Amino acid sequence: MSIGVCYFPEHWPSERWEQDVEEMVEAGIEYVRMSEFAWAQLEPERDEFDFEWLDTVVDHLHEQDIDVVLCTPTATPPRWLVDDHPDILQEEDDGTKREFGSRRHYCFNSESYRLETARIVDELGEHFADHPGVVGWQIDNEFGCHGTLRCYCNDCSAAFSEWLEDRHGDIEALNDNWGTDFWSQQYDRFEQIQPPRHTAAWHHPSLLLDYARFTSDSVVEFNALQADLLNDHNDDWFITHNFMDHYPELDSYDVCESLDFASWDSYPTGFAQERGDPSTDELLVGDLDWVSFNHDLYRSAADAPFWVMEQQPGDINWPPYSPQPAEGAVRLWAHHAMSHGAESVVYFRWRRCREGQEQYHAGLLDADGSKARGYEGASEAASELVGLPDPGEVSSSVAVLHEYDNLWAVDEQANTPDFEYWEHLHGYYAVLRRRGVSVDVVEPTAALDEYDAVVAPTLYLINEERADALESYVEDGGELLLTLRSGVKDRHNKLLNASAPGPLADLVGTTVDEHEAQHPKQEQVVEYRGETYGYHTWNERLSPDSATVVGTYAAGSPDGLAAITEHEFGAGSAVYCGLWPDEDLTDRLVDDLLDRAGVEALSEPLPDNVRVTERGGKTWVTNGTGESVEIDASADAEFLLGEATVPAYDLSIADG
Amino acid sequence: MSIGVCYFPEHWPSERWEQDVEEMVEAGIEYVRMSEFAWAQLEPERDEFDFEWLDTVVDHLHEQDIDVVLCTPTATPPRWLVDDHPDILQEEDDGTKREFGSRRHYCFNSESYRLETARIVDELGEHFADHPGVVGWQIDNEFGCHGTLRCYCNDCSAAFSEWLEDRHGDIEALNDNWGTDFWSQQYDRFEQIQPPRHTAAWHHPSLLLDYARFTSDSVVEFNALQADLLNDHNDDWFITHNFMDHYPELDSYDVCESLDFASWDSYPTGFAQERGDPSTDELLVGDLDWVSFNHDLYRSAADAPFWVMEQQPGDINWPPYSPQPAEGAVRLWAHHAMSHGAESVVYFRWRRCREGQEQYHAGLLDADGSKARGYEGASEAASELVGLPDPGEVSSSVAVLHEYDNLWAVDEQANTPDFEYWEHLHGYYAVLRRRGVSVDVVEPTAALDEYDAVVAPTLYLINEERADALESYVEDGGELLLTLRSGVKDRHNKLLNASAPGPLADLVGTTVDEHEAQHPKQEQVVEYRGETYGYHTWNERLSPDSATVVGTYAAGSPDGLAAITEHEFGAGSAVYCGLWPDEDLTDRLVDDLLDRAGVEALSEPLPDNVRVTERGGKTWVTNGTGESVEIDASADAEFLLGEATVPAYDLSIADG
Amino acid sequence: MSIGVCYFPEHWPSERWEQDVEEMVEAGIEYVRMSEFAWAQLEPERDEFDFEWLDTVVDHLHEQDIDVVLCTPTATPPRWLVDDHPDILQEEDDGTKREFGSRRHYCFNSESYRLETARIVDELGEHFADHPGVVGWQIDNEFGCHGTLRCYCNDCSAAFSEWLEDRHGDIEALNDNWGTDFWSQQYDRFEQIQPPRHTAAWHHPSLLLDYARFTSDSVVEFNALQADLLNDHNDDWFITHNFMDHYPELDSYDVCESLDFASWDSYPTGFAQERGDPSTDELLVGDLDWVSFNHDLYRSAADAPFWVMEQQPGDINWPPYSPQPAEGAVRLWAHHAMSHGAESVVYFRWRRCREGQEQYHAGLLDADGSKARGYEGASEAASELVGLPDPGEVSSSVAVLHEYDNLWAVDEQANTPDFEYWEHLHGYYAVLRRRGVSVDVVEPTAALDEYDAVVAPTLYLINEERADALESYVEDGGELLLTLRSGVKDRHNKLLNASAPGPLADLVGTTVDEHEAQHPKQEQVVEYRGETYGYHTWNERLSPDSATVVGTYAAGSPDGLAAITEHEFGAGSAVYCGLWPDEDLTDRLVDDLLDRAGVEALSEPLPDNVRVTERGGKTWVTNGTGESVEIDASADAEFLLGEATVPAYDLSIADG
Ligand SMILES: [Mg+2]
Ligand SMILES: [Mg+2]
Ligand SMILES: [Mg+2]
Ligand SMILES: [Zn+2]
Ligand SMILES: [Zn+2]
Ligand SMILES: [Zn+2]
Repeated sequence: MSIGVCYFPEHWPSERWEQDVEEMVEAGIEYVRMSEFAWAQLEPERDEFDFEWLDTVVDHLHEQDIDVVLCTPTATPPRWLVDDHPDILQEEDDGTKREFGSRRHYCFNSESYRLETARIVDELGEHFADHPGVVGWQIDNEFGCHGTLRCYCNDCSAAFSEWLEDRHGDIEALNDNWGTDFWSQQYDRFEQIQPPRHTAAWHHPSLLLDYARFTSDSVVEFNALQADLLNDHNDDWFITHNFMDHYPELDSYDVCESLDFASWDSYPTGFAQERGDPSTDELLVGDLDWVSFNHDLYRSAADAPFWVMEQQPGDINWPPYSPQPAEGAVRLWAHHAMSHGAESVVYFRWRRCREGQEQYHAGLLDADGSKARGYEGASEAASELVGLPDPGEVSSSVAVLHEYDNLWAVDEQANTPDFEYWEHLHGYYAVLRRRGVSVDVVEPTAALDEYDAVVAPTLYLINEERADALESYVEDGGELLLTLRSGVKDRHNKLLNASAPGPLADLVGTTVDEHEAQHPKQEQVVEYRGETYGYHTWNERLSPDSATVVGTYAAGSPDGLAAITEHEFGAGSAVYCGLWPDEDLTDRLVDDLLDRAGVEALSEPLPDNVRVTERGGKTWVTNGTGESVEIDASADAEFLLGEATVPAYDLSIADG
Repeated sequence: MSIGVCYFPEHWPSERWEQDVEEMVEAGIEYVRMSEFAWAQLEPERDEFDFEWLDTVVDHLHEQDIDVVLCTPTATPPRWLVDDHPDILQEEDDGTKREFGSRRHYCFNSESYRLETARIVDELGEHFADHPGVVGWQIDNEFGCHGTLRCYCNDCSAAFSEWLEDRHGDIEALNDNWGTDFWSQQYDRFEQIQPPRHTAAWHHPSLLLDYARFTSDSVVEFNALQADLLNDHNDDWFITHNFMDHYPELDSYDVCESLDFASWDSYPTGFAQERGDPSTDELLVGDLDWVSFNHDLYRSAADAPFWVMEQQPGDINWPPYSPQPAEGAVRLWAHHAMSHGAESVVYFRWRRCREGQEQYHAGLLDADGSKARGYEGASEAASELVGLPDPGEVSSSVAVLHEYDNLWAVDEQANTPDFEYWEHLHGYYAVLRRRGVSVDVVEPTAALDEYDAVVAPTLYLINEERADALESYVEDGGELLLTLRSGVKDRHNKLLNASAPGPLADLVGTTVDEHEAQHPKQEQVVEYRGETYGYHTWNERLSPDSATVVGTYAAGSPDGLAAITEHEFGAGSAVYCGLWPDEDLTDRLVDDLLDRAGVEALSEPLPDNVRVTERGGKTWVTNGTGESVEIDASADAEFLLGEATVPAYDLSIADG
Repeated sequence: MSIGVCYFPEHWPSERWEQDVEEMVEAGIEYVRMSEFAWAQLEPERDEFDFEWLDTVVDHLHEQDIDVVLCTPTATPPRWLVDDHPDILQEEDDGTKREFGSRRHYCFNSESYRLETARIVDELGEHFADHPGVVGWQIDNEFGCHGTLRCYCNDCSAAFSEWLEDRHGDIEALNDNWGTDFWSQQYDRFEQIQPPRHTAAWHHPSLLLDYARFTSDSVVEFNALQADLLNDHNDDWFITHNFMDHYPELDSYDVCESLDFASWDSYPTGFAQERGDPSTDELLVGDLDWVSFNHDLYRSAADAPFWVMEQQPGDINWPPYSPQPAEGAVRLWAHHAMSHGAESVVYFRWRRCREGQEQYHAGLLDADGSKARGYEGASEAASELVGLPDPGEVSSSVAVLHEYDNLWAVDEQANTPDFEYWEHLHGYYAVLRRRGVSVDVVEPTAALDEYDAVVAPTLYLINEERADALESYVEDGGELLLTLRSGVKDRHNKLLNASAPGPLADLVGTTVDEHEAQHPKQEQVVEYRGETYGYHTWNERLSPDSATVVGTYAAGSPDGLAAITEHEFGAGSAVYCGLWPDEDLTDRLVDDLLDRAGVEALSEPLPDNVRVTERGGKTWVTNGTGESVEIDASADAEFLLGEATVPAYDLSIADG
């Protein structure tokens, strides 16, 4: 477990570099990430490479035993390259070009750009292949940032047609798979099919889903192209990419097939504002469950310890407001990441930049080079980590199932403004975390036998393979909780020719008779095992077959109908919840699941933003609130850090 | 009075068709509508027609005595046609194309598309000319849906220039009619005039009005082209078009000149959400007055019994939320339409589709072919209708005047965000319905002598002809209620060279001194015949000449000035109301009008969403609320359906 | 002091002109402005000029001793000109053209349009050079109205490249000045640099600032081109331009270098609505402080008596709502302008127009030619002004510093949705006006020695020259109040390599340690000289060096840190306020400043919208409220108008 920092030597005079490195050593920095936007400095003119400045800095760092993570600079093709190939620019769905002048202006499907990419990556790989200071690479930077994952240009159109041909084989198959009989949408040739450009009304949902898959695949391919080139030069290098806050448009499981591990960029106070109506604590330190959800998601995506490749160092420039993080938050975030399995936490960035678009983004140093508050937090975390034993890997007995295809399909046809896939999934994740349970976030096609309990929210696009896997899991003693909008569609986004949950009906012992996307004004009450709870957004009226009804609607139009069922199946059981439960019912459902599965959990939920996490036999208590909290620790508990009383925005680590 | 259903055999295997028809018979279906989006199935390749599948289904239906309404499939030109003529695509006002991929992507003024249209319609007309099972045609589908009535392409620009030349004669006349002296907007040639494409500021209001007329006329012409072709093949066929919920951009009176009757598509729970802030009852059954306003508008537009060509069958896909209609609503809507003069109510659609954009739209059957709740409602309505005597036509003694040109002109220069033409007009319509009065919605140029009373809201664009007609009406004993913003402009959307209401001033005996578009914060009180009421949005300060002041402002800046006047004129009288009254004053004004006119009406207003309607000596009581209501019926009242106590979402029909 | 009116003879038959002029004489009109949109009437076809109609009207007016202000008609190039040169149309940042059909559709950087402009202006100048009735010219009309100041077309792109080369010299200098090392934004040639067209993310802030300067300069150049041509024909003519309500995008100081005086267009009830949540008084008469802020700004911009070139005459067409101004408001506005140094107030417009886009805009006459309420207000003001002695010029002992560059730079990177430059500056202006103090609004580079006190809000972009000038001012005894976000950046919009306020640190004796853009939920309390106040939006934590701390944060994360400091410097002192104070603290800070500076001011703040103004030894009391107010006047006060009791929406003028 170690601390790193992002560094932009190209923004500062070379005279300053040695002082910077010395101060990094002093702060306990072990990794430095560089060069993700430096194409223009690395190749000021076509084929005139200038790596000397970077060599110098890498050498300085290596001399001080600081390892270097280099980045391919493909997020920012320079002006001369755009002049040579104006066709690389992305386009909006109305044909407007995304021009040079910010970043991420290139199309993933531009052949010209793939050649340029291969050229610079190859050059960099070759140059640094034998440098002992360079330990790994980050490919590009934050794929999809600023809404750039999806492009509508002619290159994308041609690539989409090819992708569809690969996937569907012939055009009759596509017409059949999608169901283009509707509204005379039949195609005669793959070349006729365009990205979902501006139309008068909605696009075909099957086209939208395949376009979502295609655009994700385009990035997967672009990433793999770079990873392969780098590995060719030095197979010992690790390769990673820095993902964004539960970014929806890119399948991180797929990207990770070309990566050694995943990393992500964590800005907790900004994310809290983006989700809307933040509490004061969230403004100052973020919502710990949303932060750890990303830790767990990206750790699971590569099935490997992750990095935080950019960690918020102070105030940041892109949310609506820019409050200063709470005193202690910068340090807290590093420990919190470690508790969820991080290998390294890299602060963004060393020094506030004097120029360009991110002047209002703090660094560990201020613009004038003096130490900012973040420097203290980062160096304190670094020195504490040195004293801690390596806790090993995170081990989870509960999995939450997640598949990007479901997110894409539901998002395109939510059928209500209130159904947000991530929110629904996160509702279950959060109550698990409130009970101190470790969670993996894995695909439905993952091996599930290692888990005692599985929560499967909205398995929307279903097929026999997925249903069979879940049946086997439960048959063999697994405990499963399935939720609403499962088994609704086939993998092409067509409704099944059967009641939901289709091939899952045997497993849950019930079918869905009718669903309803309710208006907030409508009454939403359900009785579950003798107690009354609220729900919202969605209900399904169930027709139980062999299942037992354990929840019944208690108001409004579904009054009296079955809402939640339980079904013993082989050695395990499967619960189906046909509504979106309020928080206390979610907690109750999960508590009952853990009970059945024999998973150890806290008997009472933790307070908001206070969390307990286990990793390798150690226990982290993280206090993301402005009040100190008291841990119910045994008298002989041994604290590696802190103590039973955890002050505001502080933490303690106990052995055991 | 009969029940029908919309059917899409092209979405289902041919093996299923006979079972579908049998189940339709069982449900009491008498009409089936088909083929409105089936161009690609009818002509899979250019000039390769395939009518066999449709023949088969028509034959099945005809064998079971179910009559068929076919549709011309021009709402969805197939991909190959767009490839042949990419110029048929519509354009936004900034030049962005409305691409293939949804529906309604063609321009009404494309010569290529008119030729293609004539080709397919002619082919269909010829093929089915002698089939006894086909009784009529729907032309295209929902003209203007998804904002496609107005297009800004070069074809439209050229057609607009021609239309203007036809209408104005020479360019000097146009410059004079419009008043292009303002801001140097003179034109030298008709070809210079473009649709109102993107400009820095507002367009010329006279151009906007003529563009609204031109675009409506373009559709009228496109519709007539098809109607003529079909009539050429079989003059016994009826021809109709399915209009949308009080759709503003298309003059339905003009379209109906080529139709035998009008039909419209009724989705009450969706409309209620579109109007904003729906009550729970409106979420479950809609606002009955807005539904019946459409019944009355489209019945009046063709002066003929109307059809509901698409009737909501359950949950629907396009509003924000998709609650299930109340138990009983699907049946209720059919009877409610009949009470307003419907000849047939056709549910949309037979079966929920597995594919494409409308998967989240219910049918009478579910996607898996099982019967959904809507099936019960529709078949119950069908069997009840069989038992009812034919009540004949609706007869109204009150007319509300409506002219699309006024809507267009006011909408373009509302002068406040709160003035909505339909809302203003509907305010008067609704209080008439609360008193159980039958209403026609007719143009100011219609024959008015058959009406005892006439309400004329906002006769904005005036001329002598319209003023003379109203004078004659009142002179001969008619009772007239005119409202604010009347007689403001000439027919070219220029202010009159006279105080409002211009040529109506003689009739009302007053002029308007000054108007005011008030902010909601301002006090808005008026005294009318001794009592105090609220008003909103707009006031006019009147200068009565020979009229009597019956209403006076009682607060704010117009305090003490004349607000409402009454004027005896010949054998009748004309009231002018210079403000937008709150509901109770609207009711009072209308009650006084009915009184003067001797129109029979309920002495007390009905509760919200409970309505009484007369048609041919029968009386319908429709209860669109969740509580049962008691009718004040005489002891010997004979009920054809139901009884004096009407349960929630239910109805009764009394003879007399 | 005199009254004028805007007149459009081209909208009315020539038979009416003499009657109009007679009624103007009767109303006391001394100036008539004409022809600002009349290009199509002046040149109906290329090179076919028709000045006869205008000659006739000018003659009529001159015969009646009414002086004429003519306008160049360049705001509305006619259709034929656009047909000849379609390239003159402006473009949006996504390339959409701003088409013909409203006004202001030309690009300031179009060479074609500059030639056309020179042609018509030259023609007009020559024609009227010797007419004694024409006393001056307004150039164009409301530069920038409808968002047209900034254009993104290719002509602008080429001109921007040239402008940048002029300013930066060579491309290496530009790269260095801007800091293009960030995100690989280096340029190789000036031609590569485009206007800030559509990009995926933010533009470079230094490019944005230079683009703001360039676009302002383009207008300055376009204006000077016209001014020079007119002066060539008659050097006695005055030249002005009518600016808009504290319009942000155009540097009025720069424009005024080619003008004899500034004028502006005042629509108080509209402006109040644009600022949001108007009070009832503001709906009826406007916010007097925002109106007078414009008077003072534009008087200061040319350092000369100003004109109101368009004064609201009644209801207007462009705000959301169009209430009628309060009885008395039309007269009040004229006197209020005079009290702030106006030389003439010209009502817009003589008669409500029957045609075109502004039919819902009142005139002194109604559309039918009858006198409207505005006529009474204007003529009453005219006759009162005749009786008043010339009070001479306004003299201010306090200056508020304002520089458009700071507005532009802060606006582009506000770092919170709540920081609005004008609002911040106006907060200080308003408390000065509440104390009856006269204010100049001048640039930081102006001569400050004539002022006893200076308020300098947000001197964001700093350099040594500006810092030195302020140091000299204070050293010599000036009293200075500096506020937050000062001395943050260099003149190229790069952060300083020093703590804020950079070169101002010596003067204020403090630096800024950390800033925070707070969320409204966060606690915001400060203690200032023993009392507790609220603040909002922004705080800076100060590190005082030689300054005295006079304000300290009293809540939240900056609790206990220095917030406001005072520093004696030479013979004066400098206060630095590191937060955005609520109104009462703003008042307190300014009151203390005036105290130190010995500026005479009212001991208690005036009520809202009641204001006292001095000009040349006379005192105006303006009552912009619905209640009468009592002035605390000495028994022997001599009233030139009104008396000690000022009725609602009325005023009085006292001698002394
Ligand atoms: Mg996947
Ligand atoms: Mg009409
Ligand atoms: Mg300047
Ligand atoms: Zn692309
Ligand atoms: Zn068109
Ligand atoms: Zn331009």
